[in-house]
Amino acid sequence: MKKEKLIRAALSDGSCELVLKNANIINVFTGEITQGDIAVSNGIIVGIGKYRGKKEIDIKGKYVAPGFINAHVHVESSMSMPEIYSMEELRQGTTTIITDPHEIANVGGMTAIAEILKAADRAAVNYFVMLPSCVPATSFEHSGAELDARQLSYFKNDPHVLGLGEMMNAVGVLALDKDILEKLDTFSEMIIDGHNPLGTGNELNAYITAGIHTDHESISYNEAIEKLRAGLAVLVREGSASKNLEAIMKGIIKNNIDTTNLAFCTDDKHLADICKDGTILYCIKKSVQLGLDPIKAVQIGTINAARIYGLKRIGAIGCGYHADMVVFDDLENFNIIDVYKDGVNIRDIPEPKNIRYNSSLLCPVNFAPLDEKAFDIPVKDQNAVIGIVDRQIITQKLFYTREQLEKGLSDGSVNKIAVVERHNATGFHGTGYISGYGNIHGAVASTVAHDSHNIVVIGDNDSDMIFACEQLRRIGGGYVIISDGNVIGELPLPLGGLMSLKPARELIPELDSVIRKAYNLGVNKNIDPFITLSFMALPVIPELRITDSGVFDVTKFEFIR
Amino acid sequence: MKKEKLIRAALSDGSCELVLKNANIINVFTGEITQGDIAVSNGIIVGIGKYRGKKEIDIKGKYVAPGFINAHVHVESSMSMPEIYSMEELRQGTTTIITDPHEIANVGGMTAIAEILKAADRAAVNYFVMLPSCVPATSFEHSGAELDARQLSYFKNDPHVLGLGEMMNAVGVLALDKDILEKLDTFSEMIIDGHNPLGTGNELNAYITAGIHTDHESISYNEAIEKLRAGLAVLVREGSASKNLEAIMKGIIKNNIDTTNLAFCTDDKHLADICKDGTILYCIKKSVQLGLDPIKAVQIGTINAARIYGLKRIGAIGCGYHADMVVFDDLENFNIIDVYKDGVNIRDIPEPKNIRYNSSLLCPVNFAPLDEKAFDIPVKDQNAVIGIVDRQIITQKLFYTREQLEKGLSDGSVNKIAVVERHNATGFHGTGYISGYGNIHGAVASTVAHDSHNIVVIGDNDSDMIFACEQLRRIGGGYVIISDGNVIGELPLPLGGLMSLKPARELIPELDSVIRKAYNLGVNKNIDPFITLSFMALPVIPELRITDSGVFDVTKFEFIR
Repeated sequence: MKKEKLIRAALSDGSCELVLKNANIINVFTGEITQGDIAVSNGIIVGIGKYRGKKEIDIKGKYVAPGFINAHVHVESSMSMPEIYSMEELRQGTTTIITDPHEIANVGGMTAIAEILKAADRAAVNYFVMLPSCVPATSFEHSGAELDARQLSYFKNDPHVLGLGEMMNAVGVLALDKDILEKLDTFSEMIIDGHNPLGTGNELNAYITAGIHTDHESISYNEAIEKLRAGLAVLVREGSASKNLEAIMKGIIKNNIDTTNLAFCTDDKHLADICKDGTILYCIKKSVQLGLDPIKAVQIGTINAARIYGLKRIGAIGCGYHADMVVFDDLENFNIIDVYKDGVNIRDIPEPKNIRYNSSLLCPVNFAPLDEKAFDIPVKDQNAVIGIVDRQIITQKLFYTREQLEKGLSDGSVNKIAVVERHNATGFHGTGYISGYGNIHGAVASTVAHDSHNIVVIGDNDSDMIFACEQLRRIGGGYVIISDGNVIGELPLPLGGLMSLKPARELIPELDSVIRKAYNLGVNKNIDPFITLSFMALPVIPELRITDSGVFDVTKFEFIR
Repeated sequence: MKKEKLIRAALSDGSCELVLKNANIINVFTGEITQGDIAVSNGIIVGIGKYRGKKEIDIKGKYVAPGFINAHVHVESSMSMPEIYSMEELRQGTTTIITDPHEIANVGGMTAIAEILKAADRAAVNYFVMLPSCVPATSFEHSGAELDARQLSYFKNDPHVLGLGEMMNAVGVLALDKDILEKLDTFSEMIIDGHNPLGTGNELNAYITAGIHTDHESISYNEAIEKLRAGLAVLVREGSASKNLEAIMKGIIKNNIDTTNLAFCTDDKHLADICKDGTILYCIKKSVQLGLDPIKAVQIGTINAARIYGLKRIGAIGCGYHADMVVFDDLENFNIIDVYKDGVNIRDIPEPKNIRYNSSLLCPVNFAPLDEKAFDIPVKDQNAVIGIVDRQIITQKLFYTREQLEKGLSDGSVNKIAVVERHNATGFHGTGYISGYGNIHGAVASTVAHDSHNIVVIGDNDSDMIFACEQLRRIGGGYVIISDGNVIGELPLPLGGLMSLKPARELIPELDSVIRKAYNLGVNKNIDPFITLSFMALPVIPELRITDSGVFDVTKFEFIR
């Protein structure tokens, strides 16, 4: 029996596989740094004190922290599959992630969730899942699935599942939407993540009272402290696009706020950024640079998240805890020397390979035939144009006269944009005009298109746009760049049309290359060619968007006909 | 639907039953004191901020803390039944208790646990139960029940049950006792309380690694800090007999130790002491007097315990939390002005009455007939004598010669003591000699006798001792004082022979009275007549004890024959 082995090892019968000798241990329980040996048996920390073991590593002078916890992440945003993503997190000291497979669930519904839970078994990190609460994200588009409370309930007892993922529909909660309340009730005994940007006052109170436990959308200290005071655990986010840590932590430090109900998260962070800086490691380092006590920073990145999510035996260097440990040089630079997952040095963990996914997730591009007139759109006296804003995710609602539009289309300042339903070949597609993407000749297209992940395609001619859609079908989803009927560049993302099957060292340069080719085609250098494109289809961010049902005015919550 | 009502109330539709206006709120999340209105609907805090309600109470200048949590208590030690006990805790600001019905389970086994879980439904506090792990406590006596892992497992899904109660058999854990490991495995996904006095070093590590989460036995700062560092939550105990708070908290404060993994508890506290000082209230006050930040003290007494035991929506003034609140005057004196349980002022909570318990728990005295020679014991050349020590729970192992013993018996410095199995009429009884109890003429007897709660009786003559046992049967258990065949005093404790059915205002004076009568009979004033007696039967505390199988040498772990 495993427990008997652990007890014997703890009693120092010499059976420990690994002993880290003379460690400076960051004790997240007492807030101290203590010295001692850390003894590991069967992947579990069985003792701290004086120990001998089969393998002893003297780390005198070095520090040991518990493995970090990324409290909220959408793995799909890395474009790498869970097994690959987990390895990159591990290398940066993260040994536990709490994920919401919201994107792939919009593509593949229950099958996608089941596949992710299988992947969680294979992942090298502790891979926990919050079940996507908002599939589809809106009713203004056609996603690949609709998940109701009943469907979600079937996953409740999976050991990876901690509760319900971010409830993005705060308006629906306050409006007592029946389906939403049913989901909240279904998960009332588990953790329910929130998503309430700029939530405040009595509406925030009502949202929390409905049963929400966490929020990761605060962008300022004032927003964060109000949410903390009202009872939400605040997940401080530092991703690739949303960087909220400095604003929040400066206020926390200045006002000497209790940090117990804070955790760190990335939400969405690109793989290249993760490989360069890490995720929670970066949050800890940055907080310390801002003046936070290093032990407190480590607590936020470890035990706090474990407590908030009710994770047992994770997040501390303590007896009976998973031997998830980060060895590093000092409390300023936090340079990682070694990472251990369940007592195994991650250098000894094999790279994931030959990973099989259910075939239904690997045939992700299924749209109805597009004839040559599919993207025809009549020019009117007043024409709505989606105005891209440099370096922003919001767009402007523009109206061009017939003359302005024709001039824009001919000088290349205006392009066509279309969204094509690609999950169930329903034939839905919407077409509109867009400015600010750049003077391109050809088409750029993607199967990553928040949150329904239909095909979004932009171009200066219908023929290349249609060819781009067909090319996406041929490669099983991803990014493509087409010009005059030629494939200029492409990045296959066959797992749901969202994720690559390649290792990070191949994926990152391929992604760089396709982005470079898009700029060469003429895409505006003040935007990301594909990420900007992917957000044009999200009909919840002002002002204009496009879905497979047409151009949508977010400010009025209606389509422009 | 309740949730819809709560959301509407939080949105300030005016439906809140209660609003505490202008409160100084102790915010246990942020460690701040904030000002605002606290709005309550359906027993839940739905908002903090600006609110109107059907009933508004202006508490400007006063403070509001979350209701306190007593993290570990044996209700039986108060000699009042759960419903009565709960009311007294409530009056002192405690709205949640975590109990271990170890004593009554030793009497009534599964039936007793089921009855306590029913009582938990009726109790005015949030009444959580840790299932007794050590019934019987030892194999050197006969208790009323034996609870194995299988029996305990049937209670796992009761909503009051949080896990396994204090694992007192640390030796058994380290010796890999099969039955104990099975219990630990059965509850490995829940909370397991520890009990490891003076545990240290690798043996402590092994004990924790076996799956233990908490410990309430620390009597010094050094003991507490070692346990905290190793990963145990430390429940700082301040009861009637064991007063550990000052020693531990002084060190915590001096060394600026993180208090997150500390909670407060009483373990065993007498009802009169509770009515006078409170339980957790007393711990908070005393910690503040020792120099602890008052907000930290309140956190230890509220949210910390909730986090340690995984209690959701309890332990804070936050949206969606139970409206369990304590209103008090200032951060020095903590004089309680009002207590609210689920939004109801406890003055409006009716006193418990007409409470019915299963009849099997109310016929608790069932011993085999005792003939007049039952307590005969041969005088030998060397006679073991249990030596009571003033004001201590330990005893001395004494050996008297034939002459010394006869002299002692005649001058009253030595008495006879007997333990009579009283659960299943097995006929087991053990008799021995004891010194230090006082020069009494008659007998004192009790059905409270740790941990098997057989009858323990002491006296200067067999006839009164036998009469005392019979009188206990007649009154259904409790305390009796007999002299020359007359009942001098008695306190019925018919619920399992451990608890009274009377309210505190009657029970406390009756208890005072019977104690006074015992002293009048000649009991040594440096001991408690009944509590001292009750511990003479506990064969785990050095040096000599008596059980229903004879005099037991705890230092050698064997009976004296």
